[in-house]
Amino acid sequence: MKKYQRLAEQLRSQIESKIWLPGQKLPSLREQAKRSGLSMMTVVHAYQMLESQGYIRAHERSGYVVAPSVTNAEMLYQRPEAVSVNDFVFEVLQASRDIHTLSLGFAYPDPALSPRQQLNKSIAAASKRIELMTALDNLPPGNQALRQLIAQRYAARGLEVNPDGIVITAGALEALSLSLQAVTQPGDSVIIEAPAFYGALQTLERLGLKAVTVPTDPVHGLELEALAQALNDHDIKACWLMSNYQNPVGYSLTRAEKARVAALLQQHQVVLVEDDVYGELYEGATAPETVKHFDTEDNVMLCSSFSKCLVAGFRIGWVVAGRRALAVQKLQLMSTLATSAPMQLSLVDYLATKNYEQHLDELRKTLALRKQEMYQFLCDEIDDIATVHCHAGGYFLWVVFAENIDTTAIYKAALERNITLAPGKLFALNDHFNHGLRVNASFALTHANKQWLRAFFAEIKQHLPDFCRA
Amino acid sequence: MKKYQRLAEQLRSQIESKIWLPGQKLPSLREQAKRSGLSMMTVVHAYQMLESQGYIRAHERSGYVVAPSVTNAEMLYQRPEAVSVNDFVFEVLQASRDIHTLSLGFAYPDPALSPRQQLNKSIAAASKRIELMTALDNLPPGNQALRQLIAQRYAARGLEVNPDGIVITAGALEALSLSLQAVTQPGDSVIIEAPAFYGALQTLERLGLKAVTVPTDPVHGLELEALAQALNDHDIKACWLMSNYQNPVGYSLTRAEKARVAALLQQHQVVLVEDDVYGELYEGATAPETVKHFDTEDNVMLCSSFSKCLVAGFRIGWVVAGRRALAVQKLQLMSTLATSAPMQLSLVDYLATKNYEQHLDELRKTLALRKQEMYQFLCDEIDDIATVHCHAGGYFLWVVFAENIDTTAIYKAALERNITLAPGKLFALNDHFNHGLRVNASFALTHANKQWLRAFFAEIKQHLPDFCRA
Repeated sequence: MKKYQRLAEQLRSQIESKIWLPGQKLPSLREQAKRSGLSMMTVVHAYQMLESQGYIRAHERSGYVVAPSVTNAEMLYQRPEAVSVNDFVFEVLQASRDIHTLSLGFAYPDPALSPRQQLNKSIAAASKRIELMTALDNLPPGNQALRQLIAQRYAARGLEVNPDGIVITAGALEALSLSLQAVTQPGDSVIIEAPAFYGALQTLERLGLKAVTVPTDPVHGLELEALAQALNDHDIKACWLMSNYQNPVGYSLTRAEKARVAALLQQHQVVLVEDDVYGELYEGATAPETVKHFDTEDNVMLCSSFSKCLVAGFRIGWVVAGRRALAVQKLQLMSTLATSAPMQLSLVDYLATKNYEQHLDELRKTLALRKQEMYQFLCDEIDDIATVHCHAGGYFLWVVFAENIDTTAIYKAALERNITLAPGKLFALNDHFNHGLRVNASFALTHANKQWLRAFFAEIKQHLPDFCRA
Repeated sequence: MKKYQRLAEQLRSQIESKIWLPGQKLPSLREQAKRSGLSMMTVVHAYQMLESQGYIRAHERSGYVVAPSVTNAEMLYQRPEAVSVNDFVFEVLQASRDIHTLSLGFAYPDPALSPRQQLNKSIAAASKRIELMTALDNLPPGNQALRQLIAQRYAARGLEVNPDGIVITAGALEALSLSLQAVTQPGDSVIIEAPAFYGALQTLERLGLKAVTVPTDPVHGLELEALAQALNDHDIKACWLMSNYQNPVGYSLTRAEKARVAALLQQHQVVLVEDDVYGELYEGATAPETVKHFDTEDNVMLCSSFSKCLVAGFRIGWVVAGRRALAVQKLQLMSTLATSAPMQLSLVDYLATKNYEQHLDELRKTLALRKQEMYQFLCDEIDDIATVHCHAGGYFLWVVFAENIDTTAIYKAALERNITLAPGKLFALNDHFNHGLRVNASFALTHANKQWLRAFFAEIKQHLPDFCRA
């Protein structure tokens, strides 16, 4: 690391530790040079680097000040960091595959909750209906009947979308990634949440995009003022958000917040790539809105899939792309070409002939019960060392330890006991959430599992210093 | 277009028309300025542009010479061109979807040749075997049994590959694209054929790679000297080739040529991404080798799929990635996450319980017959205006018209008669192959189809000047 990089690093760390607050003046170049014993040129380089990263800004005739409000949340996307996120994500996902583990780090709900027999019947039924031109009929934008069924389900949720604007994709991840690609060029800046779904971090890295992060929180949710500020301060090309049961913190935007997000993005002509994969997993009587509900100018590309609500292995997702549907299809042509025809037909059969709504009702109830049970269990077991956040939807709990606890160490210790967890490091470009932990609460909390976990928690508490950051 | 761009364009066109031959000195800067009436600065810009594009090179103390041997084939990849290739590919593929067309532009063999009933039985059988952990078992690198069956089929072709080095993907295109991504960074140079499969052009564009093109030809095949020269002249990171029944020209490298390619790439430590999707569609008794057969250092990433030989709609392909298998899987995690589990299981059932080899035998015979029939028909009908190239494998014919004929115009006229064709423009970054035409010969040439085509050819011949370049 060069001298100016080291200085920039120090200053950034001081800003992040609130030693310098937003709006405060940093030491002048001359003063900084004197303090640090470095040359003026080195200090200039360091300040310029911090400025380019959005941490500080030049202030007319008075040197540099810490950038306002979004400061702590804002950083440029750094490729090396992202690559290591990817390796770590891969490691965690691979670990979660072992069926002998207690898969609390798993991204999908308990596979036992999938209506397997009905789905298998639908596959069998579809297999009888595959005809000569089936592969052609199911090319992008995808099966017409499937797109219509998806549009009908949105209509029931109060959202009118044209089936012609829907593109069927290989899971939600392809939908999100093609959507973002359709509205950006490499080098563009994109707003994401912090912490965020690791798929967003990986996609930004793959597409060579810069991330401007806006903080979100299990209690207060997305910082809308920070979002507004980021939109004002930067030339933003797109925004990628989850408005319902955000992964990993679980917060859902209120109606008013969704409307505000839609209005803000519209005002700045910034496209929203909205990830709503958990939107159907609500508690209570009615489905939550999406930001798309408040989108009057075809400005939101709404992405989802059947992977979280119905079955993980089909790899069928979609994007409500509206006027950008053709652009998405063209990109799909360079990515996977098309989505498996028999899988599309199987879903059409399932949605048309089986009772998806009833399955969803049951799934929601089961998830709510299991989540409540896991929440209670965790509160009973670890409320002396962590705060457990639970929300009325989805199946993740977000567990926040003291700031000096490193959940990556907890993750590693858990692995040795055949428990997988999703440590906070997965969800950020920096170490700000290394004391957070995402817990999948969709699995049955059997007596054996409780014992298993209790023993593990006892170990952690006994050796707590081992899990603290140096 | 700026002045220097116009001059560069003129010179490039002159080089391409062999007005300036490889090794010849171009007019000096001063002389060129005098001739063209442009400023020295403009001429310098133009020469620098041509140099950066590989057309000319600075010659010690003696100005600029036309770059040797690969010159005509060599150019930097230009993004705007690539984007328009993509739009055009999209247009052509969309047109081919209409079942009322005579789909000679179609990329896949006649869907009627797929063993639909057996496949449907396999889907039905697989649907009964989908169990709790199926989605997990089929995550990358993909179903173990399927990878083993693929390895067994390679063994029968004389190629020993470790199933653990195989990664199952969403079709061959994803396999090719992830392989290339695994061994390159944006900005790297990659060797491709000219003309090439349009998927290669699109993938290079998407990954921000530069293309160095090596000519291939229906009669003489890949210019190995040009390949050697390109490897010598440039810092090449990877090479993407089809060694069997190259799309679109149909040429297959001989054994000796494959060995030479393997040796050359090995010598330069350049990874080969080998596209062998047509390799199984040989005529005669034995399958052709691939370049991978001659690869002693795990230097070739061999990609293929079931889309051309068995069924188009399943979207299951693979790459024999060897020691790079983990890198490919990590990229898959950012792309489609995984391949549909029921589709993988269906293929396992089909390969294990049905008679794939018998299907392939029949398919090869049918394709050979139909191709021969179409070849004869085209020779009879249009040998006065074009040369038809036919090879002992695959199902494409490559039709070459006089250089001034524009097959894009022919394509457009054909569309009006509900005939689709794949014009040469699809397969190149420049206009060098605009007089070529790829014809899918896998469809039955019924009497009605012959009449249909005859009427169209008559129209072309009658209005031939309309199909000539300005």
